[in-house]
Amino acid sequence: MTTVLGAYGYQLTAPGTPLQPYKFPALDPGADEVAVQVAGCGVCHTDVGFVFDGVPTRHSLPLVLGHEISVVVPARGLCAVPENLPPGLSLEMLSVVADAVTTPYEAIRRAGVGPEDVAVIIGAGGIGSFGVQISAALGAAVVAIDIDHERLKRIARHGAGLALNARTADLKGIKGAIRAFTKESGRKGMGLKIFEMSGTPAGQTTAFGLLDHGAYLAVVGFTAKPVELRLSNLMAFDATARGNWGCPPDQYPNALRLVLEGKISLAPFTEQHPLEEAPAILEAAARHELPRRVILRPNHGNGKRKPEGA
Amino acid sequence: MTTVLGAYGYQLTAPGTPLQPYKFPALDPGADEVAVQVAGCGVCHTDVGFVFDGVPTRHSLPLVLGHEISVVVPARGLCAVPENLPPGLSLEMLSVVADAVTTPYEAIRRAGVGPEDVAVIIGAGGIGSFGVQISAALGAAVVAIDIDHERLKRIARHGAGLALNARTADLKGIKGAIRAFTKESGRKGMGLKIFEMSGTPAGQTTAFGLLDHGAYLAVVGFTAKPVELRLSNLMAFDATARGNWGCPPDQYPNALRLVLEGKISLAPFTEQHPLEEAPAILEAAARHELPRRVILRPNHGNGKRKPEGA
Repeated sequence: MTTVLGAYGYQLTAPGTPLQPYKFPALDPGADEVAVQVAGCGVCHTDVGFVFDGVPTRHSLPLVLGHEISVVVPARGLCAVPENLPPGLSLEMLSVVADAVTTPYEAIRRAGVGPEDVAVIIGAGGIGSFGVQISAALGAAVVAIDIDHERLKRIARHGAGLALNARTADLKGIKGAIRAFTKESGRKGMGLKIFEMSGTPAGQTTAFGLLDHGAYLAVVGFTAKPVELRLSNLMAFDATARGNWGCPPDQYPNALRLVLEGKISLAPFTEQHPLEEAPAILEAAARHELPRRVILRPNHGNGKRKPEGA
Repeated sequence: MTTVLGAYGYQLTAPGTPLQPYKFPALDPGADEVAVQVAGCGVCHTDVGFVFDGVPTRHSLPLVLGHEISVVVPARGLCAVPENLPPGLSLEMLSVVADAVTTPYEAIRRAGVGPEDVAVIIGAGGIGSFGVQISAALGAAVVAIDIDHERLKRIARHGAGLALNARTADLKGIKGAIRAFTKESGRKGMGLKIFEMSGTPAGQTTAFGLLDHGAYLAVVGFTAKPVELRLSNLMAFDATARGNWGCPPDQYPNALRLVLEGKISLAPFTEQHPLEEAPAILEAAARHELPRRVILRPNHGNGKRKPEGA
């Protein structure tokens, strides 16, 4: 019923090219439509895939990317958050719940992670940093593996009982360290729950190499690149590999609750930028230069629109 | 308490060499041991792996291979069969239940195959021929894929509603044929249950290539060779890949029942040879020259032993 003044943003017009600014005129939502005001939008590596790695989009270009948003809606929807958020949280920040938190949450939920488990999270970046915190919140002893020293230092303060650098340790060394950690933590020595959250062929190779008898491997990160592996190891180890395409909406409130209760910290693992930086941010993401999950913040002005950052 | 006269057979003394005859002197089982008389022993491709493909054995050589046996025991054990078997069945023939029937049975049980499913069995050989029959017995519409015309003709008479030759059809053609078959059979068009039972890299590549949204892929056949695949497809398709290391003993009676009820035919898919042919049979298996699962039959004589076939 309300007419809103319009919208602006950045769209992909052709693969391999920078995002281009666009501007919508006034929006006139129909009776079965709703206009929402985006507070923040998390930048995901699947967006990088569409722009730089030739991953085909389902709809034809041009397309506005960005599927990880928090919004203000005229009427309350499924996953409404309290008016007054706990200190340190903002609506913008909660945008990352829509994918970076819920997707690992769903992977960890399907794996049935609990206090008796050792959870190994490969990749402590935009997804894995939340995967570690979720696993720890569910009581598991958590191992984080990454190639970045700073990320490992940060995640060791947020749930990882063991943080391993895959640049300085080979598979044998990683296995030995996990074995010792498992023993120290009083968990049983078999049936690791492994979560590939780096979205890289190297991470996937490590993940598959860690399979032990009864292991469960969740494929959470995405890469379009193939890997060479001995698929029969699933049979030899009586193991399961499972992927999840996002998270069903009925699980969002459970993931959000962990955030609101402070069991998942967002602030140390996110950074906010104006939406106008979208094209540059996407290029930096493709070069793996972003230390934290980026949240883009549109400028809503005062009824005025600032259509581009040029 | 009984002393038995002895035993003979064929053992692996060094990888890559023919099996060698051996002879045990009189056996004297202790109070917690039992001597059994082997009726038949099925030849499995994992045996071929130990002899010809460098798959390491768990214990040191020399070793007697053969893990798929039917035996006569002094006291009845877990999975005793009726004194009078149904026509067309013999104790020797039942040896293949110990792995070639129970291993696909367990894979199919874990997958939860039922009347609403389309089951795709890749490889209609020593394991897959039983996989097709088990899936059909559970009510699924069954697709069999192999590269051997005779095998495909045979399995089309034993449960396969669609038999596809992967030598003459590419992945796109196979997908199209499965789609049409799914429609005809009145099943839903997504969430295939795929069973890799060929134990070959080509079969594994096809199996992975058939993943659709919500698919379940069971890795049943074994090959030591690696394959190149896009592991992230598990995530993109919300799919599961699962292996099973054999079958827990408590499921043996269920698999055996299907055989005794005639829902799984053994005769058309097995052939019997004297144990003395073991070395030659293993070499033929390595060359993929055996059209059926081979059962080796020891010669028990009349209290006398015939120690070798030379």
